[in-house]
Amino acid sequence: MAQASEHIINPNVSVDNVILGFADNELKVLLIERERVEEVPDDFLALPGNLIYEDETLDQAAERVLYELTGLKNIFLEQFHSFGDPNRIRKKQDLDWLKAIRAHPEARVITVAYYSLIKADNYNPTPSAFAQKAFWVPITDVGQLAFDHNDIFYRALEHLKDKLYKYPIGFELLPEKFTLAQLQRLYEIILQTKLDKRNFRRKILKTKFVVPLNEKQRGVAHKPARLYHFDKERFKSTEHRYVSY
Amino acid sequence: MAQASEHIINPNVSVDNVILGFADNELKVLLIERERVEEVPDDFLALPGNLIYEDETLDQAAERVLYELTGLKNIFLEQFHSFGDPNRIRKKQDLDWLKAIRAHPEARVITVAYYSLIKADNYNPTPSAFAQKAFWVPITDVGQLAFDHNDIFYRALEHLKDKLYKYPIGFELLPEKFTLAQLQRLYEIILQTKLDKRNFRRKILKTKFVVPLNEKQRGVAHKPARLYHFDKERFKSTEHRYVSY
Repeated sequence: MAQASEHIINPNVSVDNVILGFADNELKVLLIERERVEEVPDDFLALPGNLIYEDETLDQAAERVLYELTGLKNIFLEQFHSFGDPNRIRKKQDLDWLKAIRAHPEARVITVAYYSLIKADNYNPTPSAFAQKAFWVPITDVGQLAFDHNDIFYRALEHLKDKLYKYPIGFELLPEKFTLAQLQRLYEIILQTKLDKRNFRRKILKTKFVVPLNEKQRGVAHKPARLYHFDKERFKSTEHRYVSY
Repeated sequence: MAQASEHIINPNVSVDNVILGFADNELKVLLIERERVEEVPDDFLALPGNLIYEDETLDQAAERVLYELTGLKNIFLEQFHSFGDPNRIRKKQDLDWLKAIRAHPEARVITVAYYSLIKADNYNPTPSAFAQKAFWVPITDVGQLAFDHNDIFYRALEHLKDKLYKYPIGFELLPEKFTLAQLQRLYEIILQTKLDKRNFRRKILKTKFVVPLNEKQRGVAHKPARLYHFDKERFKSTEHRYVSY
């Protein structure tokens, strides 16, 4: 026999969604306040997540759970990491809460985490299922979350930064015509760091897919700046030309 | 009650390892031939993978399973994706094989995949546990694998290419002192594409961490080329300066 497998207890498997929303020059994250169960006087916030069903893919589970808890749909969710420490759920109220809702309380929970970056203004979360509330929280205001959701959230931010260093993501968060100052501000918010203006402009313009328009800002108090747009076609054709080596 | 969870059957969870090895100017992958069980006249090759134990992290499971099946240890394994299609295992002999070795045959298998890139020469796989054989196969010779391992393997290659576009990985696969031609060849093998020599050199040298030595190749038939080395300290300090924006 290939293995003595009698002692393996199958884990619970869940999905958790880190939905990052950009609005008012701020980066926010979508959190829920979970339903209080009798045993647990709970006031922790959490990422929208839940157990997967046996007949759905992980991607489908992430979509369904997000929709069930927050009403959000048609969002491109990208899997970024699975979390499987046997002790990832340690806080007493988390264990009690899980015990109250879970089918297999004797087993650990492994979670597959997804993330997305969207325009927060376009999405108005509505709580349902076991979410009492669902709302956007500025990432700088995120306190202690339930389970190991702080770790998952932090890792999603790192993943996003990592992507931004490589791909020009985030253009869909800006108006169709934008100034380089707006673009730089977006990058600074996501990367949580100050960028050098001259360097940033030089590099952005070298990419060839941020294209200057023959148009300037209107109705601004300061000297109007030139407007740019993001050329998707050029981006597709140059995707690998701006790489680092 | 937060959810009707009675109908959730917990899945089996496994890890699979895509170990890529560079040797003789070729990229290879570590495969096993799994033990034949009575019911299955099997001759499929597979990635080294198995079910996780309930008391180990996913990273620990990946390390343990790799070691148990191939004897390889002390390898940096990076998780890159989890595969959870309920129908990811479809071939009859795979289903039969799993039935013969698995604790919970009524449930699907979700697998968390890891990858690594190593110097193949330094590692000599030794089959054990349910692996009959364990050996390096050039990636261009990989045929049909068991389960959905072709998908997992393909995705690992994509992940590796993706990383290479961003980070200067792979230097540890070269001799300490190398020529730019050797470096380019390594990149071409991993990316499976031809690179323009002039462009490649210009970009590599711009990074500042590939440093020319005051030394040339010896004992070569052709005109000896300059040797370079990879400056780890400089790399650490410049990591984010060569990015694309």
